[in-house]
Amino acid sequence: MDAKDYVREMGRAARSAAAALAVAGGERRNEALTACARELRRRAGDIRAANAEDLDAGRADGLGDALLDRLTLTDARIEAMAAGLEAIAAQPDPVGRTITATTRPDGLRIEKRRVPLGVVAIIYESRPNVTADAAGLCLKSGNACILRGGKEALRSNLAVAGCIRAGVGEAGLPPEAVAVVDRTDRAVVGALATAEGLVDLIVPRGGEGLIRAVVEAATIPVIKHYAGNCHVYVDASADAATARKIVLNAKCQRPGVCNAAETLLVHADHAGAGGLLALLVADLLAAGVELRGDERARAISPEVAPAGEDDWTTEYLAPILAVKVVEGLDEAIEHVNAFGSHHTDAIVTADPAAAEAFVARVDSSSVMVNASTRLSDGGVYGLGAEVGISTDKLHARGPMGAEDLTTYKWVVTGEGHVRE
Amino acid sequence: MDAKDYVREMGRAARSAAAALAVAGGERRNEALTACARELRRRAGDIRAANAEDLDAGRADGLGDALLDRLTLTDARIEAMAAGLEAIAAQPDPVGRTITATTRPDGLRIEKRRVPLGVVAIIYESRPNVTADAAGLCLKSGNACILRGGKEALRSNLAVAGCIRAGVGEAGLPPEAVAVVDRTDRAVVGALATAEGLVDLIVPRGGEGLIRAVVEAATIPVIKHYAGNCHVYVDASADAATARKIVLNAKCQRPGVCNAAETLLVHADHAGAGGLLALLVADLLAAGVELRGDERARAISPEVAPAGEDDWTTEYLAPILAVKVVEGLDEAIEHVNAFGSHHTDAIVTADPAAAEAFVARVDSSSVMVNASTRLSDGGVYGLGAEVGISTDKLHARGPMGAEDLTTYKWVVTGEGHVRE
Repeated sequence: MDAKDYVREMGRAARSAAAALAVAGGERRNEALTACARELRRRAGDIRAANAEDLDAGRADGLGDALLDRLTLTDARIEAMAAGLEAIAAQPDPVGRTITATTRPDGLRIEKRRVPLGVVAIIYESRPNVTADAAGLCLKSGNACILRGGKEALRSNLAVAGCIRAGVGEAGLPPEAVAVVDRTDRAVVGALATAEGLVDLIVPRGGEGLIRAVVEAATIPVIKHYAGNCHVYVDASADAATARKIVLNAKCQRPGVCNAAETLLVHADHAGAGGLLALLVADLLAAGVELRGDERARAISPEVAPAGEDDWTTEYLAPILAVKVVEGLDEAIEHVNAFGSHHTDAIVTADPAAAEAFVARVDSSSVMVNASTRLSDGGVYGLGAEVGISTDKLHARGPMGAEDLTTYKWVVTGEGHVRE
Repeated sequence: MDAKDYVREMGRAARSAAAALAVAGGERRNEALTACARELRRRAGDIRAANAEDLDAGRADGLGDALLDRLTLTDARIEAMAAGLEAIAAQPDPVGRTITATTRPDGLRIEKRRVPLGVVAIIYESRPNVTADAAGLCLKSGNACILRGGKEALRSNLAVAGCIRAGVGEAGLPPEAVAVVDRTDRAVVGALATAEGLVDLIVPRGGEGLIRAVVEAATIPVIKHYAGNCHVYVDASADAATARKIVLNAKCQRPGVCNAAETLLVHADHAGAGGLLALLVADLLAAGVELRGDERARAISPEVAPAGEDDWTTEYLAPILAVKVVEGLDEAIEHVNAFGSHHTDAIVTADPAAAEAFVARVDSSSVMVNASTRLSDGGVYGLGAEVGISTDKLHARGPMGAEDLTTYKWVVTGEGHVRE
C-alpha cells in the first residue's frame, strides 16, 4: 500500500479511537493502564521470544554491542515496563482540569479546560521499552498514538504493543488507540509528518539526521531535541568539593546520554597552578576522560589535547570533555548560549547573584544550580515516564510527561449572550 | 541583499535585544509600552501622512474599498492603538512567574519558571494597527519581534514602528527589539520560516494561501489558523428566543470575520411547518442573508438555495449561511468535527447533558453554550489584544495574548546534588 494511504487508514482509526478515549474518563484510562501492565507480565515469555528473533537478526546484521544492549528485553526490563505503566496510572489525571475560569460582569462564564491533543505520533529508535512508556503516557492523557520504532526492534515492539492493545480492549476501550507501524520504509515517516487533520503532534526521538528529516518534511507540529551539548560552569566563588563532585558526575556517571556534560567552563581565578582547575583535570584524567582544552586549560597538564572549534559544539556521548577557561560569568553565559544546544546547563557557585544571573540569562530548557546536569530527567522532576525531551520552546520544554500531551479548549457558557 | 542574509542580520540584532528585554523586568517593559503610546499620539500627524501615501498608492493599484478601509488610519484609530498599548501595560506581568515548585526529599528544589520565548516573527496583511498590537504584546512578554506587514501598508507600518522603537529607546531598552521588514519580497517570508536559532516562533495572519506557504516552508514552530468555519447547532431542547438571537448575531453582526457563523445545524424536531427552523429562516432572509440548505431546509422556503458539498466546508466571510437539518446531537457533533475548522462552534440548548456532550466531543478551540460564536475573542476572554487566533492544538489554542508568547525553563537548585 502507498505510505500515504497506509497512514491515512491508521490515522482515521486512531482519530476515532481518540474520540472514545477523550470521553472515557480518567478511571477507565487507569483501568486500561493496569490491564496493560497485567498483559505485559502474563505474556513476558512471548515478548522475550519475539525479542530473541530481533536480537538474532540484529547480530546477523552486525549491530554493535551498545545497540544490542538497548534492544534486549530481559524479564527485569519487562517488569520495569509493567511497573512504569502502573506508576503512570497512579499519577493525577491531566485531563479535564479547569485551568482558569472567569465570569464576566454580564454573566458570561469563560473556562479554559484541559483536553487531550488527539493523535500523537512517536518515532523512535532501538529501545522497545519506549513502546510501553509512550503508549502509557498517551493513554493516561487520553490520546491515541501511532508508534513507529526502529526496524531492528519491530518484532519486539509488536509483541509489547499486542499486550497494550489487549489491555486497552479489556478496559472496554478501542485497541486502535495504540497503533504500531508494521512496515519499515522511510516514506511512512514523511506521511506521518504531513498527516494534517489526522495526527496532531509528532515526536521524533533519535539521531539528529532522523529528527532533521522529520522537521523538514513536517507540516504538523514537531517537538524534539536535536542534541544535548550540556555545560558545567565553575564560578569564581564555587566550593571546590562541590565542583569536583558535580563535574565528575555530570561527565562520568553515564557519558552516553543527552544530559551528560560535554563542556567544562572554569573561571580564570581557578586556573593557577594547584588551583581548582588542576584538581578537576586530575579527577577527570583519573576517571579515564579524554580532555580537549583551550590554551589555559592545556597549561595545566600535557595530557590535555588542544580543542578545535568543533569541540565547543560537539555532543560526544563518550568520555571526552572540552575544557575552557573564561574571564567571568558573562563570558560563560555567552559561551553557553552561543555553542550550547539549549538542553541542560549548570553553574557551580556560592554566590546567589551569580546563580540568579546564570539562571536568568542562560537560554536552556533546564538550568541547574549546584546540581549535576544528569538530574535533568522526567523521573527526577516528578513526571513519571518521559515521552521525550524538548529543547524547543513551544508547548513543552525539557522532559515531557502526560500533561505535556494535552492542550485546552475554551468553554464559554452564556444565557443567550451575543456580541453587541 | 540576499533574503537569508537580511533575515540573519535582523534576527541577530533581535536576538540580542531579546536578551536585554528578558532581564529588564516588568516595570521597565511597562515604561516602554507607555512611552510607545505617548510617541504614537505625539507623531499622529506623521503617521497619517505616511498612511495617506499608502492609501494613494493603494487606490492607484486598484485596491478594493474593504481593503482601503482596513488600511486607513484615522486619529481615532491611532488613539485606539495608543490606548491598546496602555491597556497591555496595565495587565499582570506574564514573565518570571513560578508555575510549579517542588522540593524533593533529598532537598533538591525543582521550579518551572515562566520566561519569554525570545524572538517572535509575525506576518500579516493590510491592517497597520497589528503593528502596534503585536509589538505591544511582544514587549509585554519580554520578546523581541520581527514584523512583516503587507506591502500596501509598508509606509504606515514603518511610521507606527518608528514610534514604538522611539518609545522602547526612551525606556532605556534596545529599539532593535521591534524590527520591521522594510522590503516586500516573498523570499523574506521563507527566510523567516527557516531562521532556526534566530526566530523562535512564526505567527502568520492572513489568507489560507499565505499561511500554507509559511507552514510548508517552516522548520521553526508556526501557530496559525487557516479558516473559521464556525457552526451554530440548535438542539431539540433549545429555547426559541435564545436560538433566534444567537443565530442572527453569529451570522449577521459582522459577517466578514473569522468567528462569524457559516453553517447552521438544526435538530429535526424544529423542522416542521411553523417550527423554530421556519422562524430562523424568516429571520435570516429578512436580514438579507443568502441561505443554502439541504433538502429538509429547502422544504421550509423556496428562497433557500440547494447546498453543495463545498458549502459545508466554506468560510463565506459574507452574508451567506449553509443550513442543515440533523437527526440529533450525535449527527451535529460529527458534522462539526468532520467539516468544521476547529475554530469556534456553538450549541443552543436547554439540556445540560446535551451541552456537556457537545463541549466534550466537539474538537474546537472555543465551544460556546448558549452564546454567540462572535464572543470568541481575546478581548472578551480578558487577554487584552490578540497576537493571533490559533486553531492549532500545540502551545496556544484560540485567542493568543501576552502569556501565550512565553515558555518556561526548569530551574533546579541543589547543594552539590548528583545522580546516583
